Amino acid sequence: MSKPTRVVIVGGGFGGLTAAKTLVKTDVDVTLVDRQNHHLFQPLLYQVAMAGLAPSEIAVPIRTILRRASNTTVLLAEVEAIDLAHKLVKVSPGPALNYDYLILAPGARTHYFGHDDWEHYAPGLKSLDDAVEIRRRVLLAFEAAERETDPRERKRLLSFIVIGGGPTGVEMAGAIAELARYALGRDFRRACPAETRVLLLEGADRVLSSFDPSLSEKAVVQLSELGVEVRTGSLVERITAEGVVLRSGEVLAASTVTWAAGVAASTLIAKLGVDVDRAGRAKVALDCSLPGHPEVFVIGDAALMLGPDQKPLPGVSPVAMQMARHVARIIAQEAAGDGRSEPRPPFRYVDKGSMATIGRSRAIAEVGALKLSGLMAWLAWLVVHIWYLIGFRNRLLVLFNWAWSYLTYRRGARLITGGRLEAGPPSLKQLESTAPQPAAQA
Amino acid sequence: MSKPTRVVIVGGGFGGLTAAKTLVKTDVDVTLVDRQNHHLFQPLLYQVAMAGLAPSEIAVPIRTILRRASNTTVLLAEVEAIDLAHKLVKVSPGPALNYDYLILAPGARTHYFGHDDWEHYAPGLKSLDDAVEIRRRVLLAFEAAERETDPRERKRLLSFIVIGGGPTGVEMAGAIAELARYALGRDFRRACPAETRVLLLEGADRVLSSFDPSLSEKAVVQLSELGVEVRTGSLVERITAEGVVLRSGEVLAASTVTWAAGVAASTLIAKLGVDVDRAGRAKVALDCSLPGHPEVFVIGDAALMLGPDQKPLPGVSPVAMQMARHVARIIAQEAAGDGRSEPRPPFRYVDKGSMATIGRSRAIAEVGALKLSGLMAWLAWLVVHIWYLIGFRNRLLVLFNWAWSYLTYRRGARLITGGRLEAGPPSLKQLESTAPQPAAQA
Repeated sequence: MSKPTRVVIVGGGFGGLTAAKTLVKTDVDVTLVDRQNHHLFQPLLYQVAMAGLAPSEIAVPIRTILRRASNTTVLLAEVEAIDLAHKLVKVSPGPALNYDYLILAPGARTHYFGHDDWEHYAPGLKSLDDAVEIRRRVLLAFEAAERETDPRERKRLLSFIVIGGGPTGVEMAGAIAELARYALGRDFRRACPAETRVLLLEGADRVLSSFDPSLSEKAVVQLSELGVEVRTGSLVERITAEGVVLRSGEVLAASTVTWAAGVAASTLIAKLGVDVDRAGRAKVALDCSLPGHPEVFVIGDAALMLGPDQKPLPGVSPVAMQMARHVARIIAQEAAGDGRSEPRPPFRYVDKGSMATIGRSRAIAEVGALKLSGLMAWLAWLVVHIWYLIGFRNRLLVLFNWAWSYLTYRRGARLITGGRLEAGPPSLKQLESTAPQPAAQA
Repeated sequence: MSKPTRVVIVGGGFGGLTAAKTLVKTDVDVTLVDRQNHHLFQPLLYQVAMAGLAPSEIAVPIRTILRRASNTTVLLAEVEAIDLAHKLVKVSPGPALNYDYLILAPGARTHYFGHDDWEHYAPGLKSLDDAVEIRRRVLLAFEAAERETDPRERKRLLSFIVIGGGPTGVEMAGAIAELARYALGRDFRRACPAETRVLLLEGADRVLSSFDPSLSEKAVVQLSELGVEVRTGSLVERITAEGVVLRSGEVLAASTVTWAAGVAASTLIAKLGVDVDRAGRAKVALDCSLPGHPEVFVIGDAALMLGPDQKPLPGVSPVAMQMARHVARIIAQEAAGDGRSEPRPPFRYVDKGSMATIGRSRAIAEVGALKLSGLMAWLAWLVVHIWYLIGFRNRLLVLFNWAWSYLTYRRGARLITGGRLEAGPPSLKQLESTAPQPAAQA
């Protein structure tokens, strides 16, 4: 008997995990590598940043999900480099991994378009650590405002700016406004919700530009109801500890700024030495493989593939999962048969629609010609997200938490952990002073 | 009308919070200062360290608890110093606080008896950050063992040492053994539970020495059933990255060591310049006030008061809460009346019994002459702890999580967050490398 085909999957997000699940009970050996021990349900990450959900409610250990996949080994390690010529994945810690097939699903990271220094003042939202840091900054801003007697400075402390009017930015802005108005409003004496200002900045001429223009307008109305000021056509010139300076010269004072204006593919893709686009995504063939390397597939946010409208497929989980099933089936078929006799089928994305949530009972959704907004869209969003949350327990816990928040307007996960007590981004001195304490690294 | 009496409370633990609650609806102005925004239900902290509960399930914002206490201001700040002569509490950030009465309830910290360098290798368990760091180390040890091919090194990675056989040490050791055997056992391919070794080291001749000797014996039996090796009379000579060296010269190799062998009062007490004992506790008068300062009270773990048996009252929450009610009533009475005409009543501790949990269906309890062990003691422990958990929501969530863990043997909060992927204590180089990334400070 010949050795079984070795498949290495890089990344335990929606793409990598779906690929591993599709390869269960096939005649291949799978190794899934991720630098995190957990799969993250990213569509709800903004809820962790806004203290609505606890980190463990939207994350499940990858091992637990793949417990019954007896042909799969899960490895917690960082992928350092990929040697396409020798079919090797170099990981740290641990020895390099050989592969017959490689599925790259490393996902995306926050991208500052050449302004990496902005990250310090305006963190993005891609990981649990990001979410806990943003939660920390938002909650500390309210605490600092409670101590502050100068009304001008208190106003700055209670000003929050979200940069980027895509679904993540809209969700964050809506959630900050709700947090301030309902959950925190009754807990503070001085930091009153009426003084809170939430600004959503978008460079283009409308928010949620991937949706129909009529839905963008409805989203702005719903955001305004929550007290969010939406500023379209606002390009950012500079971000500092004091706030944001627009290209128009206007200065927006704010203690807390978050970045939702751009993502790029994982830096792993750039190291491959293959063709990439401006967002660092690998240009893939019609079957999702790398040109010249039929044994290497790139899927999800890290892949650039054009849709029927000649626009790149969006960086959403359905694309990643459908690509994952497509390439896993190709691998399974080729591993079972005798090589690549047939031409591979091309990948075709089936768009089941998209949605964005704004707040309690507020959302928009677009499914083909059907356009929903308000309560109906929100209920649809709720059902879909609860349904796809991996793990029965998490589904129940999240549902419980949402029901609780809905009924009481409270937030259950309002914890500030770690050492810093000042609002705003940490100074470099503070970062250094926390370094020698292992307990503060959590 | 004269100005209302100003009461400053330092610490939002069981003592400080109970004092604030007792002073609600009295004619005093209360300011509660804590450097954390949350009250922590410390008796369940070991469950967070062992991935059974999420941090937000055992912690509630102090503001939320005191939301309806209209005479109370909650301040998130670090107390830098106390000026007893001028009746001032210096905080950072923010201006100093004047007081007419001061209640010091700063609690205890982990104490290494002159070996502060051990903290790096053997963290203690006093805060949520500590718990998340221990959780991280335990989970990373299993991940590293899964990668390891050398059986000797794998054994070291799967060896866990808990130093200190008091209630916290017993709870942690039992919980590690359960985590390895049930929750993780089915998720790993190589790191098998049979190879796991959990050692509980105690310097005295028995564990749980505050209980009746017969219960100590029963605890050892229950720990052995879970697979914990209990070593009494074991004094620690040295702790390194490799493990623990005993005074006998024996070397115990282990990747993960935790410290539950001693606590001392908060360093705030030492700065007061008053009489303290070896554990840094302030010697208080019979009414819990500082000798010479009838307006300053020290309560809870930071106070040294002798019981009827001439032994110091233990550092448990019932002592702190009873002291809190005692001093709050004295303050309320004196603020309402015209000064200190009557002599103050002395504090008397009412001991309602004590208990320690060992694992699923395993515990010991001692209430007066009544001694329980096993399932009955565990059920009693469960009822008491659920009951006292602050906040209706948390009670439900914790109950749900426990029921879930009990039925499925799973653990819901098995998250490794932050940047490090190696097992064991972080090297100083790793600590430095995480410093410049604000997002990793969560």
